[in-house]
Amino acid sequence: MQNNIFELQYAMDTFYFLVMGALVMWMAAGFAMLEAGLVRSKNTTEILTKNVALYAIACIMYMICGYAIMYDGTWFLSGIQLDGASSADTLVSTVLAESAKAGFDGSSVYANASDFFFQVVFVATAMSIVSGAVAERMKLWSFLVFAVVMTGFIYPMEGNWTWGGGSVFGMYSLGDLGFSDFAGSGIVHLAGASAALAGVLVLGSRKGKYGPNGEVRAIPGANLPLATLGTFILWMGWFGFNGGSVLKLGDIASANSVAMVFLNTNAAAAGGAVAALLLARILFGKADLTMLLNGALAGLVAITAEPSTPSAIGATLIGVVGGLLVVIAILTLDKLKIDDPVGAISVHGVVGLWGLLAVPLTNTGTTFFGQIAGAVTIFVWVFVTSLIVWLIIKAVMGVRVSEEEEYEGVDLSECGMEAYPEFAKN
Amino acid sequence: MQNNIFELQYAMDTFYFLVMGALVMWMAAGFAMLEAGLVRSKNTTEILTKNVALYAIACIMYMICGYAIMYDGTWFLSGIQLDGASSADTLVSTVLAESAKAGFDGSSVYANASDFFFQVVFVATAMSIVSGAVAERMKLWSFLVFAVVMTGFIYPMEGNWTWGGGSVFGMYSLGDLGFSDFAGSGIVHLAGASAALAGVLVLGSRKGKYGPNGEVRAIPGANLPLATLGTFILWMGWFGFNGGSVLKLGDIASANSVAMVFLNTNAAAAGGAVAALLLARILFGKADLTMLLNGALAGLVAITAEPSTPSAIGATLIGVVGGLLVVIAILTLDKLKIDDPVGAISVHGVVGLWGLLAVPLTNTGTTFFGQIAGAVTIFVWVFVTSLIVWLIIKAVMGVRVSEEEEYEGVDLSECGMEAYPEFAKN
Amino acid sequence: MQNNIFELQYAMDTFYFLVMGALVMWMAAGFAMLEAGLVRSKNTTEILTKNVALYAIACIMYMICGYAIMYDGTWFLSGIQLDGASSADTLVSTVLAESAKAGFDGSSVYANASDFFFQVVFVATAMSIVSGAVAERMKLWSFLVFAVVMTGFIYPMEGNWTWGGGSVFGMYSLGDLGFSDFAGSGIVHLAGASAALAGVLVLGSRKGKYGPNGEVRAIPGANLPLATLGTFILWMGWFGFNGGSVLKLGDIASANSVAMVFLNTNAAAAGGAVAALLLARILFGKADLTMLLNGALAGLVAITAEPSTPSAIGATLIGVVGGLLVVIAILTLDKLKIDDPVGAISVHGVVGLWGLLAVPLTNTGTTFFGQIAGAVTIFVWVFVTSLIVWLIIKAVMGVRVSEEEEYEGVDLSECGMEAYPEFAKN
Repeated sequence: MQNNIFELQYAMDTFYFLVMGALVMWMAAGFAMLEAGLVRSKNTTEILTKNVALYAIACIMYMICGYAIMYDGTWFLSGIQLDGASSADTLVSTVLAESAKAGFDGSSVYANASDFFFQVVFVATAMSIVSGAVAERMKLWSFLVFAVVMTGFIYPMEGNWTWGGGSVFGMYSLGDLGFSDFAGSGIVHLAGASAALAGVLVLGSRKGKYGPNGEVRAIPGANLPLATLGTFILWMGWFGFNGGSVLKLGDIASANSVAMVFLNTNAAAAGGAVAALLLARILFGKADLTMLLNGALAGLVAITAEPSTPSAIGATLIGVVGGLLVVIAILTLDKLKIDDPVGAISVHGVVGLWGLLAVPLTNTGTTFFGQIAGAVTIFVWVFVTSLIVWLIIKAVMGVRVSEEEEYEGVDLSECGMEAYPEFAKN
Repeated sequence: MQNNIFELQYAMDTFYFLVMGALVMWMAAGFAMLEAGLVRSKNTTEILTKNVALYAIACIMYMICGYAIMYDGTWFLSGIQLDGASSADTLVSTVLAESAKAGFDGSSVYANASDFFFQVVFVATAMSIVSGAVAERMKLWSFLVFAVVMTGFIYPMEGNWTWGGGSVFGMYSLGDLGFSDFAGSGIVHLAGASAALAGVLVLGSRKGKYGPNGEVRAIPGANLPLATLGTFILWMGWFGFNGGSVLKLGDIASANSVAMVFLNTNAAAAGGAVAALLLARILFGKADLTMLLNGALAGLVAITAEPSTPSAIGATLIGVVGGLLVVIAILTLDKLKIDDPVGAISVHGVVGLWGLLAVPLTNTGTTFFGQIAGAVTIFVWVFVTSLIVWLIIKAVMGVRVSEEEEYEGVDLSECGMEAYPEFAKN
Repeated sequence: MQNNIFELQYAMDTFYFLVMGALVMWMAAGFAMLEAGLVRSKNTTEILTKNVALYAIACIMYMICGYAIMYDGTWFLSGIQLDGASSADTLVSTVLAESAKAGFDGSSVYANASDFFFQVVFVATAMSIVSGAVAERMKLWSFLVFAVVMTGFIYPMEGNWTWGGGSVFGMYSLGDLGFSDFAGSGIVHLAGASAALAGVLVLGSRKGKYGPNGEVRAIPGANLPLATLGTFILWMGWFGFNGGSVLKLGDIASANSVAMVFLNTNAAAAGGAVAALLLARILFGKADLTMLLNGALAGLVAITAEPSTPSAIGATLIGVVGGLLVVIAILTLDKLKIDDPVGAISVHGVVGLWGLLAVPLTNTGTTFFGQIAGAVTIFVWVFVTSLIVWLIIKAVMGVRVSEEEEYEGVDLSECGMEAYPEFAKN
């Protein structure tokens, strides 16, 4: 009967992982819709293509080598020895034997396949962040080549130093320095933004975005309902992103933690949304929908580094700061002529950093020094390696479409089809 | 080992609550897409802004005071003493001690945070109903001020008299009168519609909707795929809305009840959809998509007051009546010159009332008198308080945009950006 | 206490079924968005109407007779004696007595209503496949009449011969021949495609699709973000489609199986997407978004017949073959002048067949002969009966709109409203 209880707990924790993972997978749709709504209609097919393809590439690369790099240290294809159904009988006895050895101690035990599934959708999230920032001017195939390297190598390496428990090139251990990043404000979001920043610097800004006298020209997105839908999808998917990162459900303490994470994730998004709406109103005099959306996303990014220890009010306030920061960051990046059509660097990079720094405010097991060390490590690693890869791609196959292609829209040159062939005026 | 079983049940019931709550949160996206699809393109950015902002406001206000008013009676900020992860160890012993006291009796025990999360998304649903009815002519900030009062006070008060178990101003108890509203046909949907009706009466109809000789002019929605998507999202989210309202999963009787609720929720929506499709065909000679969508939603609203006791056929028929009623109600409201661009008052108000009245047909623990008493109480309270609030807002800051702003579309005046800047013809 | 454990397992398996079923229901939205994005704007309202209505019809017909035909053999309305909440107390003792008789053997025990709910959403999926193939030229009401017969009779019959364990007209048993179709590559997808093929042959191609000299004219879809959204929705929903088909979660072997199914479903979609993207690039020189989407869907269809036994690499490769096949099939069908606006026959029919044939590669309990026998049985039954039904409908009420209606778009003639009244140019 002890075994029966154990089997139930194993099944429950596995199911919890899978449901949370499905929600994170859903975030891929969120990024696709958000970005497709915020670019011009002539670049919409291409960004959709990028988003679907990068998700598929992330899944394949993480299976081939990413998972192994991140968690085992053994390379290439070793990540795929998963417990298939065919070996289920053997597994039951193995797992039970391990459990008996360990005592019924409530430690995390669940199907390896569910862990892989939950991890693989995180890689895709990191990569999704990049696609928006380089939109409307990057060559599609150059982007996809970068996706191969990012999801198969760059992300897994820093993932190994953090969640994987590895040391940074044998030099220092982030965990020992008091670093903690619950669900990935830094490991996923700041990392994605760092790769995006390197790409944007190599690419340059869109034609016409910045005038000769330093003026910033608004380039409105073609389909705001899509962008709003994308934000709602991300908001929903984030319950899986953060909620699943508790890594265990099946006892009272874990269940309470998962519940608090859901509540705080929602509260932070609400705080970020309202703060950005009000700040934009003060600055621009209008209820700026895109700032509202970015505010909600900023709240979500901000709470991701530690959604389990703040109170609901605390989480709301962490989100509020994120929402204020994102408006300021978007305006500042434009002043610096760093052209990010969807605000991804601000939302995921600047606010991701804030998320990391907010952790020691409520989690006494962490230090500001550790958080800064982690942020610097992630940024330097991802930014430098990404910059090198972008530059190699630039040299070999180019990264930017021709001026004429950019003017006509990358949909025709890269994909050969318009996203809205019957609607768009020219 | 008894404790292990209890912990599993606690975790399972908590997880069930959280998954159902995530589905209800998803309904916010459904309302946003439905309403954005049914208004004209010039008013789309504004309704998206309203929907995102009202959800965020609902989350914050319910945390600050709504939850406390609804369930504790103690006001302001007391709702947020939730069992955080930091106090998890204490909680385990507390919960187990309570459980030991009570015996392993299968009563609902789960993380308080999961209960709060599930409740907070309901508030947002009630508020979402209002935004569609007042679309295309209300000032954005006036609406958001109303949202603060509705989600922080008006809804929680009537929620306290019903689900909260309180008595109506110390005068009578709805529960004692035989009132029951399983998942909120009245408490959520009729309440939202009552606030919407008050708003519409204060606002007046859109310019051009009704001609000088009483003719009703159709104002078609700009994006029917969005409206359809919104309906599918709501249909899916409703499984959480009704399914989660069983409040417990972890024993055979509860699991059967949750399963029956899922099945009946789906069956009622199907019945409502087909009934409205056929009635519209008879009346108009065409397969009217918007009536089909409203029919499905009507079926969902109708079954919400009691989805656990009807048979599958019974649930389908309850939905059929809802689907017929909604077509008639939409036509009737237009004859009365009550201008509701998305049909929210018909779907949630008229059919919400039908849902309440249908309860005694299958639930022997209720009475028609109790249901009518509940409906009247909810309607009078929400309508009167809403009317007062709308009138105060009108006096202080105005509720209606200028005629010129209405003609140009509220997107430019309120949000400063178009939803489809490249598409819409003028 | 044994009973407590049993109740928990019952609840967990029921909940698992319901969550998976909700994901499959969500696929209805996916098909609606996919198809609405791939047709022209003038036919969009109608295809949305068809998708919502067919889902509702499927739910009603399966309740009235489909479920009974598929699983009981007793006809008409017998499918609805479900264990409602009112009889929950009786049920607890019944279920526990049955369990005691059987010993605590971990066999699948869960609420009947959850099984019905999971099954009913499958019927809708099969029917959804048809709507895309016959788009832009079929009469709406003729389609809905077909939906009644397909969901109430044609699908349940072949479902009975396969998942229902019945023999084919008392002649042979597919199970005995070594046939296995885990989640329905054949039973759902090939079946839907067979009905679609019959419909397309009766209907003929759209005006202008094929030129007088055999040239194939591209008719681009009006809204590719919608089509992409639909694909992501289907991808997500497929976790429920395949993951729920394990039929049990609550022990280690089952949980491992569900986890592996999630992982493999995702891997196959990724493989199919990348393969189709690359093949289209080779053939057309462009990154073809619609082929990418169809590739992902093809990967999903291919793995559906057996997602539990392949390794992750194996699943990816099964998806890759699906992705290559779908590109070739779409081109081939156009050469044969079989006009399928959304590629449904290729995705679900051709690749569904591949899925069936791939099963014996990893599942040693099956035979190629059995798989072929199953495929032929399903195809012949569904194609022939569908053809007869389509021909009867044609004789009685017609299947094709007039040439003028087709030119003007079926939205106006069938639904009386445009999907995008403010956008589309003419």
